[in-house]
Amino acid sequence: MMGTARIVFDRWDGRYAQRMGDVRSSATRDLFAAASRSDIISFAGGMPEISRVPADAVASAAAEAIRDFGSEALQYGSSEGRPQLRGTIVELMAEIGVRARQEDIIVTAGAQQALDLLAKIFLDPGDVIITEGPTYLGALQAFSAYQPRVICVPMDEQGMDTDVLAAELAALGPRGAKFIYTIPNFQNPGGVTMSAERRRKLLELAREYDIPVIEDDPYGRLRFDGGHMRPLRALDEDVIYLGTFSKIFAPGLRLGWVIAPRPILGKVLLAKQAADLCGSAYAQITAERYFAGTRWRRVLRDLTRVYGERRDAMLEALEEHFPAEAEWTVPEGGFFVWVRMPVFLDLKALLPEAIEHGVTYVAGDAFFPDGRTGRNCMRLAFCYAAPDAIREGIRRLAEVVEDRLELYRAFQVAGALPDTMTAREVPA
Amino acid sequence: MMGTARIVFDRWDGRYAQRMGDVRSSATRDLFAAASRSDIISFAGGMPEISRVPADAVASAAAEAIRDFGSEALQYGSSEGRPQLRGTIVELMAEIGVRARQEDIIVTAGAQQALDLLAKIFLDPGDVIITEGPTYLGALQAFSAYQPRVICVPMDEQGMDTDVLAAELAALGPRGAKFIYTIPNFQNPGGVTMSAERRRKLLELAREYDIPVIEDDPYGRLRFDGGHMRPLRALDEDVIYLGTFSKIFAPGLRLGWVIAPRPILGKVLLAKQAADLCGSAYAQITAERYFAGTRWRRVLRDLTRVYGERRDAMLEALEEHFPAEAEWTVPEGGFFVWVRMPVFLDLKALLPEAIEHGVTYVAGDAFFPDGRTGRNCMRLAFCYAAPDAIREGIRRLAEVVEDRLELYRAFQVAGALPDTMTAREVPA
Repeated sequence: MMGTARIVFDRWDGRYAQRMGDVRSSATRDLFAAASRSDIISFAGGMPEISRVPADAVASAAAEAIRDFGSEALQYGSSEGRPQLRGTIVELMAEIGVRARQEDIIVTAGAQQALDLLAKIFLDPGDVIITEGPTYLGALQAFSAYQPRVICVPMDEQGMDTDVLAAELAALGPRGAKFIYTIPNFQNPGGVTMSAERRRKLLELAREYDIPVIEDDPYGRLRFDGGHMRPLRALDEDVIYLGTFSKIFAPGLRLGWVIAPRPILGKVLLAKQAADLCGSAYAQITAERYFAGTRWRRVLRDLTRVYGERRDAMLEALEEHFPAEAEWTVPEGGFFVWVRMPVFLDLKALLPEAIEHGVTYVAGDAFFPDGRTGRNCMRLAFCYAAPDAIREGIRRLAEVVEDRLELYRAFQVAGALPDTMTAREVPA
Repeated sequence: MMGTARIVFDRWDGRYAQRMGDVRSSATRDLFAAASRSDIISFAGGMPEISRVPADAVASAAAEAIRDFGSEALQYGSSEGRPQLRGTIVELMAEIGVRARQEDIIVTAGAQQALDLLAKIFLDPGDVIITEGPTYLGALQAFSAYQPRVICVPMDEQGMDTDVLAAELAALGPRGAKFIYTIPNFQNPGGVTMSAERRRKLLELAREYDIPVIEDDPYGRLRFDGGHMRPLRALDEDVIYLGTFSKIFAPGLRLGWVIAPRPILGKVLLAKQAADLCGSAYAQITAERYFAGTRWRRVLRDLTRVYGERRDAMLEALEEHFPAEAEWTVPEGGFFVWVRMPVFLDLKALLPEAIEHGVTYVAGDAFFPDGRTGRNCMRLAFCYAAPDAIREGIRRLAEVVEDRLELYRAFQVAGALPDTMTAREVPA
């Protein structure tokens, strides 16, 4: 008897917009189901350690939002976002060296919505955009709906390789791309931070070729060591800057922001109105109340310390357990370590085995637009598991990887694999 | 000396996506600024009377959401929306005769986001869609970003004219349109409700020509008189149904939902992930708590009574003050009355004068895709002003209109206007 599989017939097949051929599901998301099994240690999702955010402070903020601002909190609000919250954002930005006024800011449903709106206002099918490779998979999802051609510029420990960027731009010519998208701090998924010199070089090139730069900075304030790096927006007021409350407060409120030159911001506003009329005043007022005091600073300091300890635990465990063939980045902040294995190791194919061993990650191909590159790499999120769980998870993962590597080593000894094929030659 | 005007030079002009040429700002929104002057009586925005929603009940729901569900309320959630809230929606839908399961529902950022996501998954530039004419201006905004050709079908007191629809569909042929968008109950801006016979006819035509139907039902539960009409989705499970908490609870939480056949819902989910990853768990849990008891039913009954009194006040004032040349619809529920004046009266041009007289409305052209049709019409929202204010506002508005009409009557007597040109001949 044949096995039965539920086949969902789509009688609307062929009736969708062409863009739907390009939109991918989130690999991270597909793994959340597996990762929610309590026996599995997850290095997959970049979920903040929300248990360190004091529930009583937020509950007070929430109750205040309704009791003191009920008629505003429950009503439609302005599409730009509340002036009060934009005032809070102005202050937050000033603390990291960015001068912006309320009128330069639109509040969005997380930075994710800003990515969608920016792609919507800039991209016609076939337009070129430039990103780091690997890059944030939610950005690739948002952009892909508008059918761009994505050029990925590789990174090293200094961030995006601006020599490669220069060569790509020279080939494209002035205004040859609609925008350059970068995550300069503790890149997702790469974990690396763009050096000051590279930041200057990137801005020079963007000016020379007259191409807008989108700076996505969700993790900038979560630095464990090293000195603060000035945001690109602090160096150039034409930079489009994306911020979020998801990592300094809580993702459950879905609040982020975009800072952009006035004409671009006007287009973003139109797109925002078409997308959801306005953001949630209820969530915005809650955030205003939460940031009105000083307690959030202590919470953020505590969160940063917690993430730093987890980063340390992961790096130590990688040193202790991972095979000599593995290479990984050393993030100074943020949520992620990027691990690169020899090119013949397919970490996407290995994932079911890892889950069987009680550990999960995101294979690197999710972070490239072609969905193929990066299969020998993986993103490990250290933000969500406690240090002991991290050590145990890395130990399990090392076992799975080591098993597979031994097989390949045997092939290599037998001459079945070229011994020159090393991790160094892996693209990206 | 010349007057000074601040000219904003857009150095990115010509670099935006082609769709931005078609995206319009919300006429309603542009008027909010004027309408917020306290001496102005606003019939412009369709804002619910949020002061009747008990702040203490919502404040408790909010505090509970954090205290009892903090780690969920503040974290990223599922893109479909919380199962618990979808359970609430299943029950709400059952009460109006719609059978749906949790798996048939995605929670969206108001119904507006569902409009954006549906347009995104269905529309390539130039695709045909069919709407009522006039129709919801937020839908026109959402759709226009995907560059469709919009065919407007006129309405009479029975709702969308299905004979005209049949003729349009015959001309387009099978699958000749990507979808038919309709607001069957207390239409925005028309105020009319589609009759049972028209509902059946619409579904027959949609099946015959194999075209998806999107049923937008924000006001369905706000009925003052007449019997409940079964939603299209209750008659045909292929109908895509949009609901919202904005009118039965509060718009400030930005919560709506879409019910659709499984394959379509899968596409909506991908588009939702790309647009904002997931909705606000914080807002969703607050809504779950609010709807857990029975108090919301008394609040909704009270709201409906309040809106009904305002509808009565507006209709009575129109009868008392408005000129014989005016015609208007008699809504059995919802927020809006649609007023039609003789075709030579330009109510868009008259708006600044009305505002000067301390009253505002939305001119009818905002509700047609061409931005020209409907200038002799206006939408009057009776939801937001108290009965006395409504009577005073209509009195002021009648004065403004009467002034202008007298001018035209004089022209007419002088033979400068054809006397056959009456309101009956106005398109739509």
